[in-house]
Amino acid sequence: MDAGILHPDRLFPADPATRTLARDLYKSVETLPIVSPHGHTDPRWWGENPAFSDPAALFVTPDHYVTRMMISQGVSFEALGIGADREKDPRKIWQTFADHYYLFAGTPSRIWVDDALARLFGVTQRLGPDTANDIYDAIAERLPNPDNSPRALYDRFGIEVIATTDSALDDLAWHAAARDSDWTGRVVPTYRPDAVIDPDTPNFAQNLERLTEVSGCDTSTYAGYLDAHRARRAAFIAMGATATDHGHPTPLTADLPQSDANALYNRVRIGKMVAGDAELFRAQMLTEMARMSLDDGLVMQLHAGSMRNHAAQVRQDYGPDRGFDIPIPVSFPVALQPLLNAVGMDPRLTLILFTLDETTYARELAPLAGVWPCLRLGPPWWFHDSFEGMRRFRETAMETAGIYNTVGFNDDTRALCSIPARHDVARRVDSGWLAEMIVTHRLDENEAFDIAKLLAHDLAIKAYRL
Amino acid sequence: MDAGILHPDRLFPADPATRTLARDLYKSVETLPIVSPHGHTDPRWWGENPAFSDPAALFVTPDHYVTRMMISQGVSFEALGIGADREKDPRKIWQTFADHYYLFAGTPSRIWVDDALARLFGVTQRLGPDTANDIYDAIAERLPNPDNSPRALYDRFGIEVIATTDSALDDLAWHAAARDSDWTGRVVPTYRPDAVIDPDTPNFAQNLERLTEVSGCDTSTYAGYLDAHRARRAAFIAMGATATDHGHPTPLTADLPQSDANALYNRVRIGKMVAGDAELFRAQMLTEMARMSLDDGLVMQLHAGSMRNHAAQVRQDYGPDRGFDIPIPVSFPVALQPLLNAVGMDPRLTLILFTLDETTYARELAPLAGVWPCLRLGPPWWFHDSFEGMRRFRETAMETAGIYNTVGFNDDTRALCSIPARHDVARRVDSGWLAEMIVTHRLDENEAFDIAKLLAHDLAIKAYRL
Amino acid sequence: MDAGILHPDRLFPADPATRTLARDLYKSVETLPIVSPHGHTDPRWWGENPAFSDPAALFVTPDHYVTRMMISQGVSFEALGIGADREKDPRKIWQTFADHYYLFAGTPSRIWVDDALARLFGVTQRLGPDTANDIYDAIAERLPNPDNSPRALYDRFGIEVIATTDSALDDLAWHAAARDSDWTGRVVPTYRPDAVIDPDTPNFAQNLERLTEVSGCDTSTYAGYLDAHRARRAAFIAMGATATDHGHPTPLTADLPQSDANALYNRVRIGKMVAGDAELFRAQMLTEMARMSLDDGLVMQLHAGSMRNHAAQVRQDYGPDRGFDIPIPVSFPVALQPLLNAVGMDPRLTLILFTLDETTYARELAPLAGVWPCLRLGPPWWFHDSFEGMRRFRETAMETAGIYNTVGFNDDTRALCSIPARHDVARRVDSGWLAEMIVTHRLDENEAFDIAKLLAHDLAIKAYRL
Repeated sequence: MDAGILHPDRLFPADPATRTLARDLYKSVETLPIVSPHGHTDPRWWGENPAFSDPAALFVTPDHYVTRMMISQGVSFEALGIGADREKDPRKIWQTFADHYYLFAGTPSRIWVDDALARLFGVTQRLGPDTANDIYDAIAERLPNPDNSPRALYDRFGIEVIATTDSALDDLAWHAAARDSDWTGRVVPTYRPDAVIDPDTPNFAQNLERLTEVSGCDTSTYAGYLDAHRARRAAFIAMGATATDHGHPTPLTADLPQSDANALYNRVRIGKMVAGDAELFRAQMLTEMARMSLDDGLVMQLHAGSMRNHAAQVRQDYGPDRGFDIPIPVSFPVALQPLLNAVGMDPRLTLILFTLDETTYARELAPLAGVWPCLRLGPPWWFHDSFEGMRRFRETAMETAGIYNTVGFNDDTRALCSIPARHDVARRVDSGWLAEMIVTHRLDENEAFDIAKLLAHDLAIKAYRL
Repeated sequence: MDAGILHPDRLFPADPATRTLARDLYKSVETLPIVSPHGHTDPRWWGENPAFSDPAALFVTPDHYVTRMMISQGVSFEALGIGADREKDPRKIWQTFADHYYLFAGTPSRIWVDDALARLFGVTQRLGPDTANDIYDAIAERLPNPDNSPRALYDRFGIEVIATTDSALDDLAWHAAARDSDWTGRVVPTYRPDAVIDPDTPNFAQNLERLTEVSGCDTSTYAGYLDAHRARRAAFIAMGATATDHGHPTPLTADLPQSDANALYNRVRIGKMVAGDAELFRAQMLTEMARMSLDDGLVMQLHAGSMRNHAAQVRQDYGPDRGFDIPIPVSFPVALQPLLNAVGMDPRLTLILFTLDETTYARELAPLAGVWPCLRLGPPWWFHDSFEGMRRFRETAMETAGIYNTVGFNDDTRALCSIPARHDVARRVDSGWLAEMIVTHRLDENEAFDIAKLLAHDLAIKAYRL
Repeated sequence: MDAGILHPDRLFPADPATRTLARDLYKSVETLPIVSPHGHTDPRWWGENPAFSDPAALFVTPDHYVTRMMISQGVSFEALGIGADREKDPRKIWQTFADHYYLFAGTPSRIWVDDALARLFGVTQRLGPDTANDIYDAIAERLPNPDNSPRALYDRFGIEVIATTDSALDDLAWHAAARDSDWTGRVVPTYRPDAVIDPDTPNFAQNLERLTEVSGCDTSTYAGYLDAHRARRAAFIAMGATATDHGHPTPLTADLPQSDANALYNRVRIGKMVAGDAELFRAQMLTEMARMSLDDGLVMQLHAGSMRNHAAQVRQDYGPDRGFDIPIPVSFPVALQPLLNAVGMDPRLTLILFTLDETTYARELAPLAGVWPCLRLGPPWWFHDSFEGMRRFRETAMETAGIYNTVGFNDDTRALCSIPARHDVARRVDSGWLAEMIVTHRLDENEAFDIAKLLAHDLAIKAYRL
């Protein structure tokens, strides 16, 4: 499937002997099924299997990795199809993308887009001002084709299982539709309760009311509120969920005495919080979620360290998820201690940690995962799901954490077409890293091949209990 | 020009194929004109064009990169020509430098000194105890030569434009002299208002009085004080300035309501500050400077994160800028938000960020520059303007920031002879990095050549509006 | 001595030309005597020279690097021979270790264990479930052999001098026994006064009473307490000590007015502390220790940044040093300033800094050590005494600190058999780094060979005044 813009040796080490090994390692995992235990594809795709409308809607407008880079160089949101006065013609949006495609030189976005264009649409030229129209036509012509529908892509991509990320308030109707269809793909939801856990969420009070409705539990007391979570988790499990996910500004946890927790919840519920209450409630709820995981077996994921919606005006005019989410320093050891001291030695718990602050890899996360039985390290996330980012993770975390305390790769994307490209990049980078481990005699060759398979497939299955 | 101590392949990657590419990339940019948009050369050099006095005054005494390393190993300031009881014989100072030159093994200082000695003075031996005298003579003999005067060096170095850094209170007389001379070199000032913005500056009150005098504006009110800045910025622009520069302990910004800002200024002006006022005033003034840039077009530079004059006794006995300036942790996202929310989406603003805390490259600066239209990343600064420092910048910031959100290289030096060496190191490191990008198929070869030219020349011209 | 599991080129760079140089550099230092100026071997071994009891007691149970990785994957402390209900059969413990040895793939522990098994016990197979028994037998059979006694190992390892780490309250009887024996090995104690300096130490009050007894000084006043330290330091010096060591949560220092220090000590002594007193007292004592070093010449070591005993239940059930010590962010410039301003320019002081927060290498420690005459950088410590960790130290600290402001290698271990392996790893990594410095023309070849010897031997002798 490699076309002119995709070199078969891309992302492999420069040294010839190391490259040869990397190639062999990669070949051994290249076509393994894709396990996607954490991502943001639209459940509707799986439930309804609609055709994608146009190239801009597929590759440009919804992908904040792509739009942010153009915004950073003065392109307007409107030109990218965003906002009240947005450009409506997808061909014009596509031309704007093509005109600015040079900005992506050296970025992971280009690798993903190039790969998807070549792999799915047979494109053999680099996107640019002059090729924009031809490539637009090549995509647009094939989009209505049934083998480009979401479910067809799932099958073409060789996906074994894919998880979506779903609000605790979601009725999971699209998941039910997918399950009840004759399609054999495996799509599982993930319990993401931020909207009913984070008191700083807009419309938090309404969300609690809605939680009462969907759970059938009385959320006017803390005990009832926790029961509502239990009920929703059970509903998610019934639909195939194996994990929860928590996106918190910081990794702070707490384990309050019950009376304090009750009182805190009451303040949070009626919106009469004092300073620190929102943070403390989020912290307390992480420990509660961990306790529930002991009982129901859901694997817990914690994504910490993003300052969301950095530009107030952009948030207001164009909404969230527009690329203005900026990492901030975080620190885990003190923050996680209450949760860990409560339940961290319990063999039933798996807690997967993700960071946007790479300084924590070697300093904190690897030492923590290298000793606490419940902890596992998630792969490089967001700004770090790239060639250099993945290498840094291997180089800084593996010696102390140990390979077996990691969980393989997450594509973590809402950009469906990029899923095989993202897994391919991870497999290439890991093959290169393992080749260097062999050449420097830190791993035996046969071990490295076994580990390549673990990293590409098995660790994700095991860690996420899939 | 390469002599025995300068290998033509220095700083290129070890892998032979990659090295060949690096060599070709380097050759394509080796002789491009030098753009020096940020530095600390003495304006008198350009206005008066004096001969340099002696080798020690040229290479040792004023260069805190050089003196600090000897101080760290027990050499006295006096032996380096600093302090009341200082050694006065430049040959003895030079001998001390030569005796300790082994300390610079593996440091950027040695690369710069070796290069300057070879390039300017034809030195072919490594400096050391035994070669000290001969090399001293070789330099001293040529210093009076007109082709070693500052303006002649400017021409010999192939400088296209050089910026100095100048106090807001400076009369720019040397700049006027350079402009009014028959010399065709382009020297522009940079508006550096720290002395009238930072209330912690010694003699701050006197500085404000002096600001009143030089601006002709009444600085007894905040409005008048801001007008004084506008007047001085206009004077700098008239002399060719295209940029401001701000050296702050932290990157904190503020955007206070006008009455609060007025009251804060009044406390600052009369020296009746409460805790936090100095920091808050610096923060507020960054936003005010950004607002002025919308009107007058000056590009804004922010250098944050140095704890100055770490040794109190050294500060007292030998003055500032003696190598005792130590980086401290900084964080940008929260700190910059007030300024960015005030003016950060305005297409007229360019704000170039510099850090001494490399953890911010991947975590904060690249994500910020990769989305805010006003932001650009300055090159590695100070302790990081080195082989390894430059590589880390490329490896950690480029994937997320994008190459086009950077501004090329700054030599940032008061050591005139080191300017070509510093640009040469940057061009070599970038050529090596680009060669690796080609070999790992992350860039096409033709792209890499285009980008080499951008990094060496064009981006600086564009970002600094030169 | 290289057996099947130890490749002679292990840890050398992949590039063939660089590898050749690395091999030559390594050969030039491979058999240099081992200088071990900081470590945790048991003084009894040197004083009494007992035989080791069994393979599990030698390699598994006491090595928290080894036990932590198994704990992280659900092995119980008991199975590793720890705790009230512990497994007592060393062969079973060894089998558990062997069954989980795959977990150590890519970790420094495996390199150390493989090396020790091959070097000391002639093992030629990788440890695993199937080889466990044979290897157990191979070790157990040789342990009673006199050439595997501690003193014999010292001689076989080519150790020139080894330092232990000893409580200020220790009577140093084992050191006296070693000195008074006919054995010629050189074992020196290190003054580690944490137990009588850190008010958060369990039994701190009893420790002070004990300090009174062993020192003969009245510790009821601050002056007497300081005298007690002076007396104990003198006793350590009499037994060969050349250094102190301080393990503090943070690098905070203080230099209080005498009356404040007196009052603080009184609160600390009687256990009537207010918030911050414990931290402040530790901080004050670092400066007092530095002052004493001016007089008695002991080199000072500061190890900061570990949050000890992260798991409360593990601490309670299994004691300290079980692998649950997690690094936390630290920052040195502000913290060290009081001590440095008090005594930092005094040529009599050497203060060696160790960090577990690698972000401080380039940002803080290298700039500090590159200018303050008293400061030296300790080698990568604990989680960072590994291939990648050592490389990062060289790449991030050397350009700014300068090689001569470092102190060579510390094995820092209580695992006697791993000492040659650890020094071997350091020599290999440094040889590889120096080879790359040659190939990229940042060092001349002859310089690199000189520096290899400095790093492997001479710098430690000099910095520790051995």
